Amino acid sequence: MANPDIEQRLAALESRVTQLEDQLAIHKLINSWGPAVDGDNPAAAASIWADDGVLLSELEDTRLEGPAAVAEMVRYEGHQQLIRAGSAHIQSFPVIELNGDTAKAVGFSRVYLHTADGGHEVWRVSANRWDFRRTPEGWRVTRRKNHRIDGGPEARAILNQAFEN
Amino acid sequence: MANPDIEQRLAALESRVTQLEDQLAIHKLINSWGPAVDGDNPAAAASIWADDGVLLSELEDTRLEGPAAVAEMVRYEGHQQLIRAGSAHIQSFPVIELNGDTAKAVGFSRVYLHTADGGHEVWRVSANRWDFRRTPEGWRVTRRKNHRIDGGPEARAILNQAFEN
Amino acid sequence: MANPDIEQRLAALESRVTQLEDQLAIHKLINSWGPAVDGDNPAAAASIWADDGVLLSELEDTRLEGPAAVAEMVRYEGHQQLIRAGSAHIQSFPVIELNGDTAKAVGFSRVYLHTADGGHEVWRVSANRWDFRRTPEGWRVTRRKNHRIDGGPEARAILNQAFEN
Repeated sequence: MANPDIEQRLAALESRVTQLEDQLAIHKLINSWGPAVDGDNPAAAASIWADDGVLLSELEDTRLEGPAAVAEMVRYEGHQQLIRAGSAHIQSFPVIELNGDTAKAVGFSRVYLHTADGGHEVWRVSANRWDFRRTPEGWRVTRRKNHRIDGGPEARAILNQAFEN
Repeated sequence: MANPDIEQRLAALESRVTQLEDQLAIHKLINSWGPAVDGDNPAAAASIWADDGVLLSELEDTRLEGPAAVAEMVRYEGHQQLIRAGSAHIQSFPVIELNGDTAKAVGFSRVYLHTADGGHEVWRVSANRWDFRRTPEGWRVTRRKNHRIDGGPEARAILNQAFEN
Repeated sequence: MANPDIEQRLAALESRVTQLEDQLAIHKLINSWGPAVDGDNPAAAASIWADDGVLLSELEDTRLEGPAAVAEMVRYEGHQQLIRAGSAHIQSFPVIELNGDTAKAVGFSRVYLHTADGGHEVWRVSANRWDFRRTPEGWRVTRRKNHRIDGGPEARAILNQAFEN
């Protein structure tokens, strides 16, 4: 029979380590998005989403439901034009909040495009709210909502979700 | 009575896990700054600072002392103009060094602004040195110094603080 | 004699904590690169590389072998011009994969330059593949390959390495 004090300390450590692992697993999902969509990899882009995951983007008034719709978005001609120009979808290091088997992240994203003169432009800067769920296969995205940072209240509302429960 | 070897391994693990948690807690402070100041949230911007925290910025020759002064900076008309244009204050993933109950971080920051033609410009790129202290309420910022990367020696001096003790 | 269940749980925790530490150590190497090369610090830039580390960059058709060659690159007149203009080499938060005593990371990098009119331009955006090895002195870079994101297949091939074993 184990020492109850040892047992308690082990259980506390196991819980703390799981929470650290959860955070790094969630960062990995978020940081996989850019390489997937800029790498023209529909399967990789789809793989980070839960079966009921939803991608909401105000810019094209988009609502994508489920991994197959995300994969289709990568194949869509509008996105293929970005890839052929040379696109880089880069996420900032976001604020993550774990809540057991769900989590949220709030941060920024930027899309850089290669330009005809050989340089690069900042094509889009957005505020992002991501939601996640722990599934039997690991953490997956259940929802992402983003809005261009254009001076309007919508992007500010998303950013302030970093400070709300 | 616990096995002394077990006790030693548990204590070592507890210390290592605390250091990992400290690093992620410090990242969270740094990554909260942008959403707070771009979200027009003076209370959130103030909340990451220690009572004696100091914000030093060469650009406007600014020296802000304490959370109330930081909150005031968010409400200041110059900052409100950035918010109305559409601003994104984004930190890089910095180099962190823990030293018990204090810590430092050295990295880059960028401010992107939405432009009249619907695009975005890189308005400012700076070198940053952050200092932190563990308080009863958690880690807080005790000092942030930044300088625009303009080719002069000041920004380089800040960047080199990543490699000094 | 320790309880075998306790022993097993301790060993599992030690392994998990080491993997978390490894990931943060690798991020620290990557995030040291910008401050080193923009801070005009050849020794710091060299220090993150293994003795047999290789830096491959398509842009100047560069192949640097070993820390001394990396230090020389920082002193090179072409790089010194970037520093005098005001350069910021900023890495994204990459996707890391550990494999025991080796690791890889895939992500983006950007070089921002201060411009004559007092602003900043996005001078280069690249796809990056980093490789690492655990050495007696800690993790070191064994290889970095990058390619400008210019719409061609080379950068996409690098990004897709995030999803390959």
